[in-house]
Amino acid sequence: MKNFIFQNTTRLIFGKGMISELHKQIPQGKSIMVTFGGGSVKQNGVYDQVIEALKGHNYVEFWGIEPNPTVETLRKAIDLGKSKNVDFIIAVGGGSVVDGTKLIAAGLKYDGDAWDIVKKGYADDSVPFAAILTLPATGSEMNEGAVISRTETVEKYAFTNTFPQFSILDPISTFTLPDFQIACGIADTFVHVMEQYLTVCGQSRVMDRWAEGILSTLIEIAPEIRKNKQDYDLMADFMLSATMALNGFIAMGVKQDWVTHMIGHEVTALHGITHGQTLAIILPATMSVLREQKKDKILQYGERVWQVTSGSEEERIELTIKKTEDFFRSLGLATRLSELNVGDDSIAEVERRFNERGVAFGEAGNVTGTVAAQILRAAK
Amino acid sequence: MKNFIFQNTTRLIFGKGMISELHKQIPQGKSIMVTFGGGSVKQNGVYDQVIEALKGHNYVEFWGIEPNPTVETLRKAIDLGKSKNVDFIIAVGGGSVVDGTKLIAAGLKYDGDAWDIVKKGYADDSVPFAAILTLPATGSEMNEGAVISRTETVEKYAFTNTFPQFSILDPISTFTLPDFQIACGIADTFVHVMEQYLTVCGQSRVMDRWAEGILSTLIEIAPEIRKNKQDYDLMADFMLSATMALNGFIAMGVKQDWVTHMIGHEVTALHGITHGQTLAIILPATMSVLREQKKDKILQYGERVWQVTSGSEEERIELTIKKTEDFFRSLGLATRLSELNVGDDSIAEVERRFNERGVAFGEAGNVTGTVAAQILRAAK
Repeated sequence: MKNFIFQNTTRLIFGKGMISELHKQIPQGKSIMVTFGGGSVKQNGVYDQVIEALKGHNYVEFWGIEPNPTVETLRKAIDLGKSKNVDFIIAVGGGSVVDGTKLIAAGLKYDGDAWDIVKKGYADDSVPFAAILTLPATGSEMNEGAVISRTETVEKYAFTNTFPQFSILDPISTFTLPDFQIACGIADTFVHVMEQYLTVCGQSRVMDRWAEGILSTLIEIAPEIRKNKQDYDLMADFMLSATMALNGFIAMGVKQDWVTHMIGHEVTALHGITHGQTLAIILPATMSVLREQKKDKILQYGERVWQVTSGSEEERIELTIKKTEDFFRSLGLATRLSELNVGDDSIAEVERRFNERGVAFGEAGNVTGTVAAQILRAAK
Repeated sequence: MKNFIFQNTTRLIFGKGMISELHKQIPQGKSIMVTFGGGSVKQNGVYDQVIEALKGHNYVEFWGIEPNPTVETLRKAIDLGKSKNVDFIIAVGGGSVVDGTKLIAAGLKYDGDAWDIVKKGYADDSVPFAAILTLPATGSEMNEGAVISRTETVEKYAFTNTFPQFSILDPISTFTLPDFQIACGIADTFVHVMEQYLTVCGQSRVMDRWAEGILSTLIEIAPEIRKNKQDYDLMADFMLSATMALNGFIAMGVKQDWVTHMIGHEVTALHGITHGQTLAIILPATMSVLREQKKDKILQYGERVWQVTSGSEEERIELTIKKTEDFFRSLGLATRLSELNVGDDSIAEVERRFNERGVAFGEAGNVTGTVAAQILRAAK
């Protein structure tokens, strides 16, 4: 096991009707900004619950944080927040709203342009903020990271050091999500686990089993959710899985990969394809191209998660990758670039960008632009 | 899934040589108390490392926090701490030292007798404190609870609301532990998981799998540790399991039991038997007496953790309980009260105490003194 330091300070408030806890959690005497995406929270009743809890507080609303939130939008929120001396923020929506709010929170404590914080990869300070989550996927509600896009330059990067003070998750607020968003959320959660798990064997028995436990849960609940997305216990398991998949709980003492995400972010930046959808396309290809390096862990994953126990090692690896791709397909997602008209020119552009950055990714630090292009070609 | 609020603020600093992080973590300008049990930390080198890190700090040492720490001892530490205006404490040792330190930390912020805090079950305030853990077992290094004994009245109770600010866990510091302490630590960890897991089915798929993941890990590593307790990766897995077993991570949204602990505490209070040893005796008997109520979960546990899949339900339950008892026996522990000369008079006394308190325990709230006595008779 690798040495590690773990700390996660976010208070997780979870369950049916728990948005009613909000009024107890909001600190008194603050100038509050409430941030939103589009209008879905007005349809599912969450907006009304939040406004009710804010009675007696001084607050301003900021609407329009888009999927793959852009620094261009967030600069406006930061300007508004500075003009109102905002010192507490409540994000209401999915992972994009939470991610965007993290940059607003950091930007309010920074004098220069907010993109500096993203490029630095680290927020030195931020105003306290909370989240009311309505879409399980990114884990942003209980971690310190955020991913921000920049339209001007078609870039997408992550920064860190921004934990929500608290997050409220009511599975009922997910009942009205479109099927495609649920599918992408399940794929995103699945791949978050894989990025922390599918590296090498023998690092931590507990972490391995916790990762496998989330994967097995997703595989078990996904077809049931397709049948009935208003089953409370199913959606509660999905929502808890998404949070636990990326809050550091399964990352203790183990190497991490993140190649699928690094490539996926580029595909999103270039084509605007939803994040979870890109991951469903890239992950099986990553496994296929890196099958030698990841051999032992793919075999363990195949055996424990997919009950693949017979055949030669090569056959078991092949079947395990196929089962992974089939799983994403069963969610209703595309699993090939060609289905979404991503062609060779985009592959070349991703290769160029990887090379330009001059860093190689993955647990072995060997995924250069050349390897990324191999992975993308395997995903065609 | 039940509604829940989860928060765990402790910074976990884990790995080989990580005690060297201590000097960076100690806040400046504090009047520090360092608390110890017996002298084992002088043999394993931990004492020297701690003293090295404390160079330049103002500190006082308090020695002699015993296993099953007593309020009588801790009152002395509180008096010393008050006289020195102590405002930061570092506990160095096993769970008893950490538990005792929690009462010292709370007692330093309380004007009356420290036993009031234990009887109230909750510390309103406490001075910040940290732990250097040398014995994996109680989970106290990353939770807010502590169990304190009172010699005068032969009582043992828990109180809460005291999270360590940080805890440092170096698996190497466990290499010199006596076999019996390791066995009790494994049993304690196993039963902590069972208290949160072996209730009813269908509450949370993730929490079930995480609990089963720790149990399976303990079953896998225990015989290997018996062969070589200086294998770093084995002891790291054990140490991480013990912390994860009782830091709230597997308790989200699920009912809890704690009957085995409630009975075990009484046996320890009456006979001074080591905590983990009492649990190894009581758990199989609890499962046996409550087999109807816990039927579905015992079957799931048997199948997933012990691969018990054939036979009638009654046969599978019987075999699963037997495998649990055999596991404790394989650790070198007693699994029957008669082996430790606990007789009918003690059973009657535990029954009397349960009835006197007038509360019934367990996930169904039905374990009265009468049922506790049944469990103890089944453990004879």
